[in-house]
Amino acid sequence: MSLLVVGSVAFDAIETPFGKTDKIVGGAATYIGFSASYFHKPINLVAVVGGDFPEKDITLLKKHGVNTEGLQIKKDEKTFFWSGKYHNDMNSRDTLVTELNVLGDFDPIIPEAYQNTEYLMLGNLSPQVQRSVIERLKNRPKLIVMDTMNFWMEIALEELKKTIAMVDVLSINDEEARQLSGEYSLVKAAKKILAMGPKYLIVKKGEHGALLFNHEQVFFAPALPLEDVFDPTGAGDTFAGGFIGYIAQTRDISFANMKRAIIHGSAMASFCVEKFGTERLLNLTPDQIEDRVQDFVELVQFEIPLR
Amino acid sequence: MSLLVVGSVAFDAIETPFGKTDKIVGGAATYIGFSASYFHKPINLVAVVGGDFPEKDITLLKKHGVNTEGLQIKKDEKTFFWSGKYHNDMNSRDTLVTELNVLGDFDPIIPEAYQNTEYLMLGNLSPQVQRSVIERLKNRPKLIVMDTMNFWMEIALEELKKTIAMVDVLSINDEEARQLSGEYSLVKAAKKILAMGPKYLIVKKGEHGALLFNHEQVFFAPALPLEDVFDPTGAGDTFAGGFIGYIAQTRDISFANMKRAIIHGSAMASFCVEKFGTERLLNLTPDQIEDRVQDFVELVQFEIPLR
Repeated sequence: MSLLVVGSVAFDAIETPFGKTDKIVGGAATYIGFSASYFHKPINLVAVVGGDFPEKDITLLKKHGVNTEGLQIKKDEKTFFWSGKYHNDMNSRDTLVTELNVLGDFDPIIPEAYQNTEYLMLGNLSPQVQRSVIERLKNRPKLIVMDTMNFWMEIALEELKKTIAMVDVLSINDEEARQLSGEYSLVKAAKKILAMGPKYLIVKKGEHGALLFNHEQVFFAPALPLEDVFDPTGAGDTFAGGFIGYIAQTRDISFANMKRAIIHGSAMASFCVEKFGTERLLNLTPDQIEDRVQDFVELVQFEIPLR
Repeated sequence: MSLLVVGSVAFDAIETPFGKTDKIVGGAATYIGFSASYFHKPINLVAVVGGDFPEKDITLLKKHGVNTEGLQIKKDEKTFFWSGKYHNDMNSRDTLVTELNVLGDFDPIIPEAYQNTEYLMLGNLSPQVQRSVIERLKNRPKLIVMDTMNFWMEIALEELKKTIAMVDVLSINDEEARQLSGEYSLVKAAKKILAMGPKYLIVKKGEHGALLFNHEQVFFAPALPLEDVFDPTGAGDTFAGGFIGYIAQTRDISFANMKRAIIHGSAMASFCVEKFGTERLLNLTPDQIEDRVQDFVELVQFEIPLR
């Protein structure tokens, strides 16, 4: 009954057609943690911030059941900072600023109390850092889920492939799946990527939903058609958090349960994009989440019986 | 028990990354007719070709249950010709040649035997021609489905809106829905378009599936993830043909049955793209179609009960 989340805890400054923010709290592990917290507690966090990171935001994580024993605070350094601007269609964005700061030499130390974790979620980080986490665990978790991005495919492909070979579930977007495999067809891309080692591949397609592949099966989960997408930042991490949180809650790593986990992850992501940053993830109720999951059930439901 | 299909019967020359064709038979009504023929016969066709259109292809339509009494043959003129080249991603294409020929002054004459049709499928044509078909029917069909394209939004928007106001189901792609409504969000776009008159809106998203909206509900049907998309030409028309054919077969215009019709249309479209032109639509068996429909059921099936 334990879940370890490793990833960035950061400051973001976001500009969308609907407005812009000052520096607000973001980072893959932050979104994953808040999202997963609606399904499973505690969440054991390994991450690093600088002395500029507000105490109140660490308190907020703790309130959501995030164990921050593994959160390193480097008093004399600055927190990772990312700034981006979304285009009018909200499907693409320009990165304006990336300041690695404390993330530049992040050494992910695993507290002894975090050992023997059953579930491991590796948020986007350098593949070397992700791999060192796996190597530092005395027992291999039942399920290792890994997120990454095109940046690492460009500058550290061999390191990335070494890490991918060690995980159970790889979660990337459609463009990344195409880049990693060299195949445009997502079916062919999935075959090549599964041949790299992972047993499952999740291909996130943003407003077009997500696909789950294993060697024999494929499942498609839609995204909920929304009136407005206010800010897509963190949607992929929120999806991953809902996915791994649901798996940790239900303790079932079958393909059938991964489908349900994807629907729950998609439901969480559909909340995330309704407000700036993590705001919409802070005060959800179980009923709100269940209603949203039901929206997905209704959206795809049709009556043609499976033979 | 009658289905009227109006649209182009044409020559296409297609170039994709996988190869190119000489002039082959295409056109919206051709794809719609072949696709619908697997669900309902006869299909009463109203269209126009030139003296250059091969007799053997008219025979082929007849073999598939297409009644060609309403197919005008203008001996001294030429058949509509379109030529296009797909980009590497297969999601966009350039039109190389458009020769309207007989379609330039097409006057859709409805044979007396076609009157009292229950179902009308208006394939892409000028909105004036589409409207004149509705006006020439002595009794309004139970269901009128209309396809159109961005071209008419650019050069004949007011005429288009007049025709849209007279139909039950409008079928367009996502970019066209955005252009017609001026809204990027498809949910907002659907509201505006439904306010123009139709009771139902189908938004085709190509490899990303299709959405069906009415004033209260939304349904999402995925596209089948395919190893290769060989030639997307006619996929939208094939989808429409499967949709209206299934409706005509089942004689049920409820939202629940429209969902099933969309799944059947999607299944037919997934065949269409596997070969050039209409080739893949010529020799399907009921078992092959049922197997493909089952692939869709499996693709989206997950076990979270509807409350």
